[in-house]
Amino acid sequence: MRKGVLILVLFAFTALFAYGENNATKGNNYPNLSKADLKIKRGYSKEALKCIQCHSEKTPGIVADWKDGRMAHAGVSCYDCHVVKKSNPMASQCPGVKGTNIYISPMVSSKTCQKCHPTEVEQFLKSGHAKLAAAPVVDKAKFQKLMYHFEGGEFMGVKKGIGKNTATRRSGCQMCHGTKVEVKNGKPINGTWPAGVGTRYPDGGIGNCSVCHTRHRFSIEEARKPEACASCHLGPDHPNIEIYLESKHGQMYLTDGEKWNWDSAPDAWEPGDYRAPTCATCHMSGIGELSTTHNVNERLHWDLMHKKSVVRSGERGNGKKGRPLMKKVCQNCHSKTQTDATFETLDDSVALYNEYFEKADKMLKDLKAKGLLKKDPWSDSFQELYYFLWHHVGRRARMGAAMNGPDYAHWHGFFQLFQVFKDMQEIYNYRIKHNKIEEVSFVMSSAPL
Amino acid sequence: MRKGVLILVLFAFTALFAYGENNATKGNNYPNLSKADLKIKRGYSKEALKCIQCHSEKTPGIVADWKDGRMAHAGVSCYDCHVVKKSNPMASQCPGVKGTNIYISPMVSSKTCQKCHPTEVEQFLKSGHAKLAAAPVVDKAKFQKLMYHFEGGEFMGVKKGIGKNTATRRSGCQMCHGTKVEVKNGKPINGTWPAGVGTRYPDGGIGNCSVCHTRHRFSIEEARKPEACASCHLGPDHPNIEIYLESKHGQMYLTDGEKWNWDSAPDAWEPGDYRAPTCATCHMSGIGELSTTHNVNERLHWDLMHKKSVVRSGERGNGKKGRPLMKKVCQNCHSKTQTDATFETLDDSVALYNEYFEKADKMLKDLKAKGLLKKDPWSDSFQELYYFLWHHVGRRARMGAAMNGPDYAHWHGFFQLFQVFKDMQEIYNYRIKHNKIEEVSFVMSSAPL
Amino acid sequence: MRKGVLILVLFAFTALFAYGENNATKGNNYPNLSKADLKIKRGYSKEALKCIQCHSEKTPGIVADWKDGRMAHAGVSCYDCHVVKKSNPMASQCPGVKGTNIYISPMVSSKTCQKCHPTEVEQFLKSGHAKLAAAPVVDKAKFQKLMYHFEGGEFMGVKKGIGKNTATRRSGCQMCHGTKVEVKNGKPINGTWPAGVGTRYPDGGIGNCSVCHTRHRFSIEEARKPEACASCHLGPDHPNIEIYLESKHGQMYLTDGEKWNWDSAPDAWEPGDYRAPTCATCHMSGIGELSTTHNVNERLHWDLMHKKSVVRSGERGNGKKGRPLMKKVCQNCHSKTQTDATFETLDDSVALYNEYFEKADKMLKDLKAKGLLKKDPWSDSFQELYYFLWHHVGRRARMGAAMNGPDYAHWHGFFQLFQVFKDMQEIYNYRIKHNKIEEVSFVMSSAPL
Repeated sequence: MRKGVLILVLFAFTALFAYGENNATKGNNYPNLSKADLKIKRGYSKEALKCIQCHSEKTPGIVADWKDGRMAHAGVSCYDCHVVKKSNPMASQCPGVKGTNIYISPMVSSKTCQKCHPTEVEQFLKSGHAKLAAAPVVDKAKFQKLMYHFEGGEFMGVKKGIGKNTATRRSGCQMCHGTKVEVKNGKPINGTWPAGVGTRYPDGGIGNCSVCHTRHRFSIEEARKPEACASCHLGPDHPNIEIYLESKHGQMYLTDGEKWNWDSAPDAWEPGDYRAPTCATCHMSGIGELSTTHNVNERLHWDLMHKKSVVRSGERGNGKKGRPLMKKVCQNCHSKTQTDATFETLDDSVALYNEYFEKADKMLKDLKAKGLLKKDPWSDSFQELYYFLWHHVGRRARMGAAMNGPDYAHWHGFFQLFQVFKDMQEIYNYRIKHNKIEEVSFVMSSAPL
Repeated sequence: MRKGVLILVLFAFTALFAYGENNATKGNNYPNLSKADLKIKRGYSKEALKCIQCHSEKTPGIVADWKDGRMAHAGVSCYDCHVVKKSNPMASQCPGVKGTNIYISPMVSSKTCQKCHPTEVEQFLKSGHAKLAAAPVVDKAKFQKLMYHFEGGEFMGVKKGIGKNTATRRSGCQMCHGTKVEVKNGKPINGTWPAGVGTRYPDGGIGNCSVCHTRHRFSIEEARKPEACASCHLGPDHPNIEIYLESKHGQMYLTDGEKWNWDSAPDAWEPGDYRAPTCATCHMSGIGELSTTHNVNERLHWDLMHKKSVVRSGERGNGKKGRPLMKKVCQNCHSKTQTDATFETLDDSVALYNEYFEKADKMLKDLKAKGLLKKDPWSDSFQELYYFLWHHVGRRARMGAAMNGPDYAHWHGFFQLFQVFKDMQEIYNYRIKHNKIEEVSFVMSSAPL
Repeated sequence: MRKGVLILVLFAFTALFAYGENNATKGNNYPNLSKADLKIKRGYSKEALKCIQCHSEKTPGIVADWKDGRMAHAGVSCYDCHVVKKSNPMASQCPGVKGTNIYISPMVSSKTCQKCHPTEVEQFLKSGHAKLAAAPVVDKAKFQKLMYHFEGGEFMGVKKGIGKNTATRRSGCQMCHGTKVEVKNGKPINGTWPAGVGTRYPDGGIGNCSVCHTRHRFSIEEARKPEACASCHLGPDHPNIEIYLESKHGQMYLTDGEKWNWDSAPDAWEPGDYRAPTCATCHMSGIGELSTTHNVNERLHWDLMHKKSVVRSGERGNGKKGRPLMKKVCQNCHSKTQTDATFETLDDSVALYNEYFEKADKMLKDLKAKGLLKKDPWSDSFQELYYFLWHHVGRRARMGAAMNGPDYAHWHGFFQLFQVFKDMQEIYNYRIKHNKIEEVSFVMSSAPL
């Protein structure tokens, strides 16, 4: 393998003398690449070759990965994406460029990707994905209200020192949501990096494209497969991959997917290339008369994530335009009758959930008015159940119904929703009857995960 | 892709003039196809070609899917399975046949499949799969006793209107169990369709074959892969796919399955074509001296689904004949010693579970006799635990032992069984000692799922 | 398939007369094979051919499996691994060797594998894998303290007879941990076999190599795939496969792994053959300057399995030498900056867990000193939560952080850790305040699995 890379490098050096020239002289912050260059120039610059040569020794895995990808075939190398201006806040120098006027950033934000993929990044920036770092990571006050996290203070009797330990945020939340990267001498400060899709970079870029198109292959094929979404869209609070894989669509993917044609061009990937849709097919890919979009909110109708389900609009979606788009996806394979029946089941599931949520919300407000809620919501069984009602079981019921995953809609969804709701009623009745909060509330550790 | 379909259609038209003729004149309810035709006739009828042509535009995915399948290669097209007599209760007309004397049914029951696959459907109709719609969907009274569902009345304080919302049944139960399809003007009424394997159709047919052989490929390969079973046989109450995939059999499938020969003819698919069995291998496929069966109950011994495990007989199985059949499967790869050891472990696991169940059942009857059970079983901790004992953890223990999934047999099975049983004992002791039902019973929302 | 085997056998018979000779005359306990033989001899002995011939009829699956493997290509057959001296405690005779002086053992311990693979077995014997049968299976007293198991006595009111039922051990624990095989007339006694990786055999051998290299293929490819580890490293108490598959590494495996080069020689399998590491890559395989090891403890730093996390040393690991080895693995693809950031997140996660554990441990000791613990830990909510704190949620938090699985680090880990800890505090406070154990403790059946 490594020998192969060296041969490539030698070949590329030869190519350099025939065709190459140093591109590193253009006048913007990310100077090295434009679409025009790609069409005309061949071979790698001397500097680019140095990167490749050194990294094929030091980190051969990523060079091998790049070498087989579409980027390499288009002549895009390390140099094109990682070299930045000295003034870039993420600028630093690796040993290979020490003493030169070349500065690099190991981190690459969507700002760099945007140079060749402007439409994709523009669409992405309109999506919920671009806003993910806000609530749980950047806006800490909101964060603490939502979850068990505490930084910089006392928490449940654990002493202050450890209270500053940000391990839960770093090992959990920010891995998917992203974070705000902070730098010192151009290098990311540990704990503020690496992070997920919504990451906010010091260069002002928002979005880590390599979450779905993993580096250094950056393939379209990978992002079309459901597992690309699965490293974040899983688990007790939004088991999207679990629901997909248990649906008939998922069954067809698992039993037949290895034969599908994953590498068609965008907008050319159509039913027939695949037997069943993946996450990307319905939410992003071109299909029939629809064009590819990197705004995952575009084809959505209901908000199934938050407390009460309403039609997504404004920042959260496409209003009434979402559903007709999604129906167009379905009707590439399904009749209008079946499509309508499926959406009606979703609508009724949402309505049923909303009824329960509103009733639960009324109880909460009632108890609050009567002074029958504990101050710390996380040591109050009623408030914990309220959280699980909408954040866990309510989502599972709604999402299971939306994506045809009966096990999640039922057992992990409505079945548990009914149980949680009834338990809330019992607590509510106890507090109202005795006009006090029950003493023994230590029953929540086995939350309906 | 779509262009390819059009070319196919043009080619087929040409073929039509050479060989084709209209088959739509035979004298039964499903007039278009017999085995004899398949052997002699070539090309598609004019009507069949019209279906293909129109749907290759409107729903290209399903046409592409059909085109690559064995059905298309045998000359079976849309027309052969979807055209019905006008008198068929599922008969309607799509725009393409409006004004003709052709009637179609988008729904296809096992009655149609049976015309070419009589043995398979006959075997299927003897299996538990064919009876699945009964208890949870059609017999609503039984259903409500078993689960948290309520239609057409007040439920846990949620107002009557929403009580009529059948979303939980439609998004959950009937997706696997099937339902009784109701029609209006030949079209299925939303909410009574689509549904799972046990579906009962207005034409009297029972069974939705496309659950395992998904449309419009209908492949044998798919149904041999474990994921075909997994969209129903999963989750907290019968985690069959989870148990399989964690077994050594599953390990071999996951690490090597992509190389196996999945497409052998029925009864010709033998060890060597695969390294390890899938669900189908043990429960359905021909192997060694055994022939293929679509009666999944045939090789079963114990009933591991219901309250007390007994040998399956009558409607539920093959009596004492089940086990010798299954042992024959095992002994294609395993010694008699190992086969016997494995079944002995299962027998002992069943015996252990039965002991716990009987003790739990005795407590239940005792509390009932003493008036110490709540009327609504779903707001009575003891009765909820009783349900989880047999319906969830007890099944997991027994099924984990049956299929060699140690994580399920232990952690999700016997480990939890012991905990549930002990909690039942504590509640029992409390009620007996104080001769009353405990006031605070709001602890069940985190049921042992 | 079976016909193919017969042809092979006939061919091999022919080969026998040209090259073969009976190897069964060497002077040790496992007489039939040495590396030298493999290099020189061709063809199978008459006895070996008889095994093949008979088993290709009786258990064609395993013969087909063997035939395609590297063992068969190296001339190693049934005879070489299964024939033992008459004096071997596992010696018996199948019908095929009855009346001859040939004795066989269907069971094969690492002692046999060691003859050709001495380094691998030597490394394995130093690993935790080789010690797995001890605590939960062989040392029953320790076992009962840890888990819900009881053999040979009364257990929770279930009568003594069933108390002797070892089904839970046989269907659960020993399937992964291994057991101590007992024999009668050379045959394994049901219930003491078959079993997992740490199995102790009557011939003194420790270790069942076929757990990862499943019989009768024994492939390196299989053991490199994550699912080989997954049949044991899964579930609520150490969800290693779940964590891996949700990590970016797992995403790359799931989306691209079918194209990887799985079959390179040991130490020649390098990044570029794969896009992302599997379990084996990091914990066992040769990579860069590191050589392959079958001691899975070698590259570990923290003990993430036991109560308080400390650096693994002595029997449990490589002390301070573990981490630098693992960092060398990472740096084949990742920068020092990113590698360090990741390990710092792990260290902080371990520190945070340890703080909680120590505080929980202090409460336990305090309650014990005050006589406020029940005698049976399994009917005492506080002690059950203590067990879940370290054995379940604490492991998930730590392992999730170690392997970059944010869903497990957070939702199944720290999120639940905080809930369990707080519930322990509530129980503690109640007992201290009232100086008694609460009466209603029946809330633990829904443990945080």
